[in-house]
Amino acid sequence: MLDKFKDECGVFGIYDRDGLDVSLLTYFGLYSIQHRGQESAGIAVSNGDEIIYHKGTGLVPEVFDEDNIDRLRQGSIAIGHVRHSTSDGNLPQNTQPLVTKYKKGNMAIAHNGALINASTLRDELENVGAIFQTNTDSEVMANIIARTSDKGLEEALKTMMSRIKGAYALTMMTEDSLIGIRDPHGIRPLALGILDDSYVIASETCAFDVIGAEYIRDVRPGEIIIITKDGLKSIQTPVPLESSFCLFEFVYFARTDSVIDGISVQASRREAGRILARESPADADIVIGVPDSGTTAALGYAEEANIPYAEGLIKNRYVGRTFIKPTQAIREQDIRIKLNALRRIVRGKRIVMVDDSIVRGTTSRAIVDMLRLTGAREIHMRISSPIIKYPCHFGIDTPDRQALIGANFSEEEICEQLGVDSLNYISIDGLLKTVESSGASFCLGCFNGKYPIECKGGCK
Amino acid sequence: MLDKFKDECGVFGIYDRDGLDVSLLTYFGLYSIQHRGQESAGIAVSNGDEIIYHKGTGLVPEVFDEDNIDRLRQGSIAIGHVRHSTSDGNLPQNTQPLVTKYKKGNMAIAHNGALINASTLRDELENVGAIFQTNTDSEVMANIIARTSDKGLEEALKTMMSRIKGAYALTMMTEDSLIGIRDPHGIRPLALGILDDSYVIASETCAFDVIGAEYIRDVRPGEIIIITKDGLKSIQTPVPLESSFCLFEFVYFARTDSVIDGISVQASRREAGRILARESPADADIVIGVPDSGTTAALGYAEEANIPYAEGLIKNRYVGRTFIKPTQAIREQDIRIKLNALRRIVRGKRIVMVDDSIVRGTTSRAIVDMLRLTGAREIHMRISSPIIKYPCHFGIDTPDRQALIGANFSEEEICEQLGVDSLNYISIDGLLKTVESSGASFCLGCFNGKYPIECKGGCK
Amino acid sequence: MLDKFKDECGVFGIYDRDGLDVSLLTYFGLYSIQHRGQESAGIAVSNGDEIIYHKGTGLVPEVFDEDNIDRLRQGSIAIGHVRHSTSDGNLPQNTQPLVTKYKKGNMAIAHNGALINASTLRDELENVGAIFQTNTDSEVMANIIARTSDKGLEEALKTMMSRIKGAYALTMMTEDSLIGIRDPHGIRPLALGILDDSYVIASETCAFDVIGAEYIRDVRPGEIIIITKDGLKSIQTPVPLESSFCLFEFVYFARTDSVIDGISVQASRREAGRILARESPADADIVIGVPDSGTTAALGYAEEANIPYAEGLIKNRYVGRTFIKPTQAIREQDIRIKLNALRRIVRGKRIVMVDDSIVRGTTSRAIVDMLRLTGAREIHMRISSPIIKYPCHFGIDTPDRQALIGANFSEEEICEQLGVDSLNYISIDGLLKTVESSGASFCLGCFNGKYPIECKGGCK
Amino acid sequence: MLDKFKDECGVFGIYDRDGLDVSLLTYFGLYSIQHRGQESAGIAVSNGDEIIYHKGTGLVPEVFDEDNIDRLRQGSIAIGHVRHSTSDGNLPQNTQPLVTKYKKGNMAIAHNGALINASTLRDELENVGAIFQTNTDSEVMANIIARTSDKGLEEALKTMMSRIKGAYALTMMTEDSLIGIRDPHGIRPLALGILDDSYVIASETCAFDVIGAEYIRDVRPGEIIIITKDGLKSIQTPVPLESSFCLFEFVYFARTDSVIDGISVQASRREAGRILARESPADADIVIGVPDSGTTAALGYAEEANIPYAEGLIKNRYVGRTFIKPTQAIREQDIRIKLNALRRIVRGKRIVMVDDSIVRGTTSRAIVDMLRLTGAREIHMRISSPIIKYPCHFGIDTPDRQALIGANFSEEEICEQLGVDSLNYISIDGLLKTVESSGASFCLGCFNGKYPIECKGGCK
Repeated sequence: MLDKFKDECGVFGIYDRDGLDVSLLTYFGLYSIQHRGQESAGIAVSNGDEIIYHKGTGLVPEVFDEDNIDRLRQGSIAIGHVRHSTSDGNLPQNTQPLVTKYKKGNMAIAHNGALINASTLRDELENVGAIFQTNTDSEVMANIIARTSDKGLEEALKTMMSRIKGAYALTMMTEDSLIGIRDPHGIRPLALGILDDSYVIASETCAFDVIGAEYIRDVRPGEIIIITKDGLKSIQTPVPLESSFCLFEFVYFARTDSVIDGISVQASRREAGRILARESPADADIVIGVPDSGTTAALGYAEEANIPYAEGLIKNRYVGRTFIKPTQAIREQDIRIKLNALRRIVRGKRIVMVDDSIVRGTTSRAIVDMLRLTGAREIHMRISSPIIKYPCHFGIDTPDRQALIGANFSEEEICEQLGVDSLNYISIDGLLKTVESSGASFCLGCFNGKYPIECKGGCK
Repeated sequence: MLDKFKDECGVFGIYDRDGLDVSLLTYFGLYSIQHRGQESAGIAVSNGDEIIYHKGTGLVPEVFDEDNIDRLRQGSIAIGHVRHSTSDGNLPQNTQPLVTKYKKGNMAIAHNGALINASTLRDELENVGAIFQTNTDSEVMANIIARTSDKGLEEALKTMMSRIKGAYALTMMTEDSLIGIRDPHGIRPLALGILDDSYVIASETCAFDVIGAEYIRDVRPGEIIIITKDGLKSIQTPVPLESSFCLFEFVYFARTDSVIDGISVQASRREAGRILARESPADADIVIGVPDSGTTAALGYAEEANIPYAEGLIKNRYVGRTFIKPTQAIREQDIRIKLNALRRIVRGKRIVMVDDSIVRGTTSRAIVDMLRLTGAREIHMRISSPIIKYPCHFGIDTPDRQALIGANFSEEEICEQLGVDSLNYISIDGLLKTVESSGASFCLGCFNGKYPIECKGGCK
Repeated sequence: MLDKFKDECGVFGIYDRDGLDVSLLTYFGLYSIQHRGQESAGIAVSNGDEIIYHKGTGLVPEVFDEDNIDRLRQGSIAIGHVRHSTSDGNLPQNTQPLVTKYKKGNMAIAHNGALINASTLRDELENVGAIFQTNTDSEVMANIIARTSDKGLEEALKTMMSRIKGAYALTMMTEDSLIGIRDPHGIRPLALGILDDSYVIASETCAFDVIGAEYIRDVRPGEIIIITKDGLKSIQTPVPLESSFCLFEFVYFARTDSVIDGISVQASRREAGRILARESPADADIVIGVPDSGTTAALGYAEEANIPYAEGLIKNRYVGRTFIKPTQAIREQDIRIKLNALRRIVRGKRIVMVDDSIVRGTTSRAIVDMLRLTGAREIHMRISSPIIKYPCHFGIDTPDRQALIGANFSEEEICEQLGVDSLNYISIDGLLKTVESSGASFCLGCFNGKYPIECKGGCK
Repeated sequence: MLDKFKDECGVFGIYDRDGLDVSLLTYFGLYSIQHRGQESAGIAVSNGDEIIYHKGTGLVPEVFDEDNIDRLRQGSIAIGHVRHSTSDGNLPQNTQPLVTKYKKGNMAIAHNGALINASTLRDELENVGAIFQTNTDSEVMANIIARTSDKGLEEALKTMMSRIKGAYALTMMTEDSLIGIRDPHGIRPLALGILDDSYVIASETCAFDVIGAEYIRDVRPGEIIIITKDGLKSIQTPVPLESSFCLFEFVYFARTDSVIDGISVQASRREAGRILARESPADADIVIGVPDSGTTAALGYAEEANIPYAEGLIKNRYVGRTFIKPTQAIREQDIRIKLNALRRIVRGKRIVMVDDSIVRGTTSRAIVDMLRLTGAREIHMRISSPIIKYPCHFGIDTPDRQALIGANFSEEEICEQLGVDSLNYISIDGLLKTVESSGASFCLGCFNGKYPIECKGGCK
């Protein structure tokens, strides 16, 4: 509904050594990363002999109820997945985890990311007889593993990693092991935690907090973690000199309370607001944020600029995924179903409005119109991410270039189109400063078009 | 709910040459063979380029609505499937048709029957790298086809048929062809029909009647029929000397109004009643049938025995698949939720009660108790199938031998257990006489334990 | 779906003295009279202090599940209702039982029938301040009872009966009593039974059979039965010289296995077939019935005419209330979704086709077309009810006169319109003979336009 | 789920003069006041002749879909209701609007508030023959109106208001008029707005914003507004010297972006934070708010105290009404499903934690525990409402006195029970200062036990 990049998936996994209720813990783990995918969810569990699962379309509490969680209670290893479907119309067959039987037994895969050579790999696999029942990258991975499993699972996983290209943060499961894998560029996040003596893996650390687990560290780029009854084994596969973690996880995707590579997402966002205030000051009466994702940077901006922070925009907490589409008559009020402007705060004011990003510009334009209608005198828009000029090919749902306002217009033109008095984006360097203590390198593809891996025929 | 063998599936297919609404015709075709499977249903269609589908658990009108049928309307070839799940708890992944992509494009398979070497084939396929996402025989078949598709589809189908053993009546589909296949023993039924210039394939001819199609002939044992824009091509694969059509299709499975191998199911059942009357006459006042499946034979018995036929048992037409289980207090009335005995007809009478088969004997016992309670003087039970002593391994849901009353007790013992005054089954020869004009040979496995194909390690 | 008159409701009630599970017994009682109304269902129970209930639209097993039946388990008195909504679009507020609080406590009402002075009574009640939340007659009755309850419940019920006019068979409940009432003309059926020491009241005796209760007698026209902890009290209110029981209950509405006024419904239908055969013989090869309601009369006709009875028409047992409407292309096949003709029986034959009634003639015409298409040589239609010329105003859903084929055309014209070789209806006297042993008088309004009560301004 | 007082209802009404889609506007109006009641919703519309409606349990977007909104599109007057059921188990019959027929035609009522003499009035009405089908106050009001309607609607409304006692803000509808009424003490809010030439009435002004309507003024205590084709008519009924508007609407119930009696809810809350900082300063490093309702006051506190405001607690935006209950094992983590503490902000800090109210204290205790576990050094709790010592009897769902922590313990004891280093509530005078410009008087019943109307037998 909002004009944002969309994360495509979240993953979770747990290996019980303490008599835990792994299906329920996975349910709550998925609940906490629901922001990473709202269109389908699934949990698979192993009882040591076989893998059973339940998947469906909808939010986590819609897909799971007492009955089907109960059926999954026999397991002691579990993985889970939430998914934001992109171009496939949310087809039931593409829900994850993907559960399959193969030569060596059972295997389940939950994937966050996107392979850029999936279609080539599918062709190769089909040429040697494979059939495909889904459009998922997970099915490609499962086929490669199955075909290279003769020398054991570790070798198969390494072989698979040598063949697939792109972004992937995986939780996997066999009858007797839990596996976490992060691609060699470390594009998507994956963290390792522990609850009593039981290891947990999740896309974000907020999933550890919800179940009371402790964050240990992030899974490293190119690392395979295999957890069995004998404990945790880490295998490092070859990696490039520099990692390429998705900077947009800090900008928007990750939950404010998550910690990635030792960096607090909240702290980095507030710092981005501060840097933005230094880079692009404004002569204004108040600073407001666009809820919810612009709030943290707005607080930072206000602090640094020494301008009062005010709640100029209020979000309807009950707006869900679905509602009846407004007719033309009240279309212009569409934004007000989600957000409302506060006249007493806005009227007659010179406003700095901070948001985290602009994708198409449609929502921004509607908010600006609403603020003007509510009596704002000046609107100075400040964006806590650099201008987005390129789509992502590594697991994020982004529109085509022609729909990206930043890919087609200059800052001045955008400023005019949105009808604001001034518009400034944070610089790339400014944004990088907010995460410098991580020691990591970052993918800046959507900002500068330089992708960590070359797409065949050139990334568009 | 009733004590019957259960057919496991029904299939349907249509190739449009007349601008027909193939998704809706398939919907009504499945509706007419709903008796062959009530637990899930699915339709797949091809628009020439790709195959889309909708599947789900429930009855045909529960799985399909205007919306999803509409989404399938773009197709001009369709196959459909209804399913009675047996031992797998009605898992969603096992619904059919199975739709896959492979080297040569897309393929969908709907299967009625059961392979007896499926597990061996799975092992072999897994050994060369295949992964399995369902427990269906269709997935085994799809893998074999995918791996042998280099010399073209026909060769792949022939290869597949040379490797799989068991009962199978298939409708299949690629982007541009509709395929019908029947196993070399011709165990399960499959008929060919035509609607204007469009070919139709279905498990039973009643599916032709409902859409106004004409019955042409049965697909022959071992025959592959491929329908494309160039018309129908028939390929005959090697077959044994004698076919082994499932005689129980005539006894119970097929709908009374279907025609199999030129034989009217209704006529064969009425004839069975007549033969039963000659083989096992009874001195009685009235003949009654156990609705609905015993009615036809009861009419034949009454006619031959020259004893009045009466409606002594009435069925509740609204009893569906699900209702709340009675508590102990009214458990003994359980049968009366489905069937009621008519006092004015039954009281003081010597009754011949005709049913088509006895499996466990539980329902029969309950009906007999109800008739006694209603005042029946004598009850002479006559069964229009021979005594069932063995389970089926070829696509029919049958209980274990220990649950089969006929496998564990003599006719005399059964007579006593059911509490009837006399009990007689039709002889095997008598039953065969009812279908002799077909020229076919029949599988009598459930009666005499002689199966058309030896199960590995001996059929239990 | 079929061209029949539709009964509008069925009622059930039980007063427990044996520790019975009255909510579950009511559930099964309603299940057995589901044929009297398929669009909504409800159960109300009293635990001695208050009345709780659950109602909803749909079939009995759709409205009730373990959870809501369980919530009703605290009760020891229960009434239930199934409803066929007519002109009100199946509005949720009109589901029954109607449960209200009034001066003397709680009261629930379930009604089968129709008042002809409801609108006048509503006006009168509104004039003294009543408000109405439903369109039901039950709400009118509840208001009258509440306003006349000062002298106690019995007086209030008598007063109510003196003011309402029309057909009504009621089960009612207060916190501590179960009540059964039948209108002075005895238009709709209501029977009294007993299960151990617990009284049961129901529209039809088949509801007694399903729970193992014994039929005692019919509630008499004008009788009020009040069951409390002190036992059963019968109050007889004034009645006309002759009762006017709905003859169509015998023709079509009642379930074949019910007994009304001591007459077996099945026996009366078979006898109607016999009388029809004597009144209107035909030179034919076979007699067939239109399933399910024409079967019994067809058996009687065949017996009397000494012509073989055959199953020429087969019904699809899985056709439910809803399915996708056929498009024009297969509209003419519409009937075949529900019924199929058997070629081997029909082809080349001179057929007597027996049905219980013709309302609009649409279904009959479609069946005749199908039989012709299947090769029938001659079709002699015989109807086991007299020609329907008038609508019913007493609780039956009938079309307007202009839609009634019998109201607008002569027998000869109908014969031609339906395309049959001959057409005969049973005579009114013939039909009355089938129920003569009941000693009752009957309403023949739909046949001869003479209604037991004059409608204001004349019944149309 | 959270430990808060719960508002019981929200109402909306619109009278179209501009060809508006009133059903859809009402849908969006209800959407915007969803926070006032999440358990059922309903819309009734009049087309000039009759009133039709749709109601159901669930959130607004669950109850309404395109189909049922479409059915309501024929209307030009509409009222709507959202409801938080309290003690009645969310019974379907109690959903509103209540729609009835009476002497003068049709009438629909949507009520926010609670009558304290409802039971007495019910008794009186029952004594003169009324029956009741719901437990709602609306049904009492409808009965009084129906009985006093002889002198016209206005007189009937006045009579009704003279007889009912308690809190009520009503939207009502007849076939041709929209009515808004507020009780003489003005306890619950009700605002008047206009959209083009069409009047709108709603519980809160945020409902005007969402549909683009302008706020005109609040309906006055004791005022009846009747809108017909002739325009708006205002009738003032007698009122006490001082009004008694619910102060808790400002504290918690109303949406931050609403305006009541000219006062911005957001401004009053921020001011409360400022006053609280002056009344109860704290020596601390950061100020945090408990999301979402404590945030605004926290910002005010931080501003006044000149202590940095920080986002120490993050809410999971996807937590809905229902989820599987945690087992004992993770019960202590329960709060973390909804809220998470940010270690980087909290650890080692002296924290002022601002919340709007404490009811039972359970959630507060859990949050404090979580903050301690996350490393908070000191926690100084500041509450922007006075200590709650008494339940509400005027339309708010409050626990019994024994469950109210403030009714049973002193501030010192509560401080100790919650485990905080200091605890202060705003003073009543302090809170009143935040709304002084309204010129209104307020109900402070939950704080000081002085209710605007004496409950019979004394308010408990």
